Amino acid sequence: MSENKIPYKIYLDESEIPKQWYNVRADMKNKPAPLLNPGTLRPMTAKELAPVFCEELVAQELNDTDPYIDIPEEILNFYKMYRPSPLIRAYFLEKALDTPAKIYYKFEGNNTSGSHKLNSAIAQAYYAKKQGLKGVTTETGAGQWGTALSMACSYFDLDCKVFMVKVSYEQKPFRREVMRTYGASVTPSPSETTEIGKKILAEHPGTTGSLGCAISEAVEVAVGTEGYRYVLGSVLNQVLLHQSVIGLEAKAALDKYGVKPDIIIGCAGGGSNLGGLIAPFMGEKLRGEADYRIIAVEPASCPSFTRGKFAYDFCDTGMVCPLAKMYTLGSGFIPSANHAGGLRYHGMSSTLSQLYHDGLMEAVSVEQTSVFKAAEQFARVEGILPAPESSHAIRVAIDEALKCKETGEEKTIVFGLTGTGYFDMVAYEKFHDGLMTDQIPTDEELAKGFAGLPDVPEN
Amino acid sequence: MSENKIPYKIYLDESEIPKQWYNVRADMKNKPAPLLNPGTLRPMTAKELAPVFCEELVAQELNDTDPYIDIPEEILNFYKMYRPSPLIRAYFLEKALDTPAKIYYKFEGNNTSGSHKLNSAIAQAYYAKKQGLKGVTTETGAGQWGTALSMACSYFDLDCKVFMVKVSYEQKPFRREVMRTYGASVTPSPSETTEIGKKILAEHPGTTGSLGCAISEAVEVAVGTEGYRYVLGSVLNQVLLHQSVIGLEAKAALDKYGVKPDIIIGCAGGGSNLGGLIAPFMGEKLRGEADYRIIAVEPASCPSFTRGKFAYDFCDTGMVCPLAKMYTLGSGFIPSANHAGGLRYHGMSSTLSQLYHDGLMEAVSVEQTSVFKAAEQFARVEGILPAPESSHAIRVAIDEALKCKETGEEKTIVFGLTGTGYFDMVAYEKFHDGLMTDQIPTDEELAKGFAGLPDVPEN
Repeated sequence: MSENKIPYKIYLDESEIPKQWYNVRADMKNKPAPLLNPGTLRPMTAKELAPVFCEELVAQELNDTDPYIDIPEEILNFYKMYRPSPLIRAYFLEKALDTPAKIYYKFEGNNTSGSHKLNSAIAQAYYAKKQGLKGVTTETGAGQWGTALSMACSYFDLDCKVFMVKVSYEQKPFRREVMRTYGASVTPSPSETTEIGKKILAEHPGTTGSLGCAISEAVEVAVGTEGYRYVLGSVLNQVLLHQSVIGLEAKAALDKYGVKPDIIIGCAGGGSNLGGLIAPFMGEKLRGEADYRIIAVEPASCPSFTRGKFAYDFCDTGMVCPLAKMYTLGSGFIPSANHAGGLRYHGMSSTLSQLYHDGLMEAVSVEQTSVFKAAEQFARVEGILPAPESSHAIRVAIDEALKCKETGEEKTIVFGLTGTGYFDMVAYEKFHDGLMTDQIPTDEELAKGFAGLPDVPEN
Repeated sequence: MSENKIPYKIYLDESEIPKQWYNVRADMKNKPAPLLNPGTLRPMTAKELAPVFCEELVAQELNDTDPYIDIPEEILNFYKMYRPSPLIRAYFLEKALDTPAKIYYKFEGNNTSGSHKLNSAIAQAYYAKKQGLKGVTTETGAGQWGTALSMACSYFDLDCKVFMVKVSYEQKPFRREVMRTYGASVTPSPSETTEIGKKILAEHPGTTGSLGCAISEAVEVAVGTEGYRYVLGSVLNQVLLHQSVIGLEAKAALDKYGVKPDIIIGCAGGGSNLGGLIAPFMGEKLRGEADYRIIAVEPASCPSFTRGKFAYDFCDTGMVCPLAKMYTLGSGFIPSANHAGGLRYHGMSSTLSQLYHDGLMEAVSVEQTSVFKAAEQFARVEGILPAPESSHAIRVAIDEALKCKETGEEKTIVFGLTGTGYFDMVAYEKFHDGLMTDQIPTDEELAKGFAGLPDVPEN
């Protein structure tokens, strides 16, 4: 099919929604290191994980052999509400940049949760329902994950208890109200409703909370309440598995028009979007069928890939979760109040960490103000107001397209536009008013985080 | 094609975006009454309208003979960014209601302006650019129109001056920031930047403004600044013309699957969405080719169709605009602080008013709390968080579907889902907290508004 017939938006048919998720670990020679029990330092078993996570999700978490896993009919039905998401040819951006590069983005923001998070939320809610549970608990920072989970739980008539970092609860009342619209209970964390919350409040009166604390509260309630489990929106293998629907759709849309990308770009916090977007492309690369440049983009304020260590670490600040081997800044590292809340996580998915360690992908870090410049430029020509997280990928896509302008190369660039910024206008306001800064940690600050890494002997 | 093959979302191809707008006035036997010069009480001429509106838009405003008007290529290109919008079969809502009715909605919220307003904003910006203007002025209340116009002006590199009702400017800072992202200047109204603003501030210190005042300021600046014109997002014939793209797409999608609606429902403030949605269906009705029940839904707090008078009235509170013959509550009527800001207008499009007067459509008014109940029910099953304005149509669609449940009739209902509620969470919060009330004007309050109607002799 000729290039100039490519529409602005490539929509697949509902019948083309993938029927299976793709599990990239099956094609990895060097498998991601297993989660470890922090007490015994031995790999966590399904039995050990079962009190915290739903059974079927535990199985998915530990499965590194099956390349494809069927998407249950009930989840496919829900996907039809907002999927397939469009793959958009950025004609307007290309024109504005005057670049010979061809730019595409997979847009995951056209649903009420405002991001790709819904892809895994609905899966996790489904398995919880299937197991006969009453409800689930989780934490949320920026609020996209909490919103997505509220929608998913509402659909399956499950109770949903969200612990929202107190500073976000107070500064983002609208996110909270969206969750309430979907029937979730939203508790500012730390709270008086848990033991760990009470302890933290006693030790740090007036604290505005942290993601680590909210995780600890959510896990405590899940483990201590009959018929509840804990669910997480990123980092875990199961989440990357569900998010592979992004990459599978993107690849199907590109294949339809005979387009082969040269560069694939995604923002990376815990890795849910990046892992999902690149999955099938990485699969081809692992199997030696094709080659792609794959670029993870992270904030300079929280540079786990580019300045972190590849080591076992706690997934949460409260140190109640298993240890994961990953690129990390140390679970005690406190990133600055960067406005891309979804990328403010000290570690990175074990799967992506292993792929990066093995040289199968690159990583770059970008500064906040340059990210918002890219966001605004993009919004003005492409119409969509991007989330700060997604705008990290936009920044690097624009940079790569400008390199093509210099060299005259007609590269094909695909990036993930994970969500919309409607609930992030405080950040945009700071940017417009010239009050936004780039907060890059010093080597000394990073050293403090590394000092807290647990001592795990190499196998 | 068999009924059960209808997908959840019917997307047309980009090539199926209508190439012409449909001008329903051409098929009306009783034409809408002309705008009158408030001084002479004679029909406004193109020459009289030219200092305020762009030339080509004046021509469209006065054209009640041509049924189809070509959509310029530049506008079609922009439409491709976010159109065709999906026509969605509400399978999940039907199931939740356990109704034999078949429900469809045309969703116009999947763009950054969050509503259908962009359809006319881009057209008005295009004609302003074509005329060689430097910029445009407008007013905005809830902010959807201002956002849409900002996006459109950014695309054509036009200056955009928005006068935003002060209370909204302060209570909706996020809407303001979206407009700033697109490069618009946003001034809280009343302001010290205009004569009328200064006068109002002197007379009413501390006033939080009104739409009428913001219109007056915007018109003053447009008329008094070289290279500027004033643009409006509803009420006018030209706006309904541009919005016909909604109905044309909806009809094309339905025709594709051989579906003929029985009932078409839209919310109505000034009439931009309703007029656009029903246009081609009303055309068939006017030409005797088909019959449909067409229902306008308005808030009980601002019931221009159901309790207003069909008379000539001022379009603005400042009485600087021409007189229009319409269903009106009087330009001095001040609706209560209903949360559907986009429906809080004292009058109604002349075209729709004439059609209603001639018995070609029905109107119902609904109360605010019942609207939010419908909104929440819809959000939970269909995923999309609706704008308060759109939720008026949802309320009546649900009511009609429940009537079908009683009678067992398998009616086909189509309604317009004009936008999303991401910037309306204050209203949802009030609803969740049980603080929302239904403010229905008394007959005495309405009588006060009617007392201010101008004395225009019948021709």
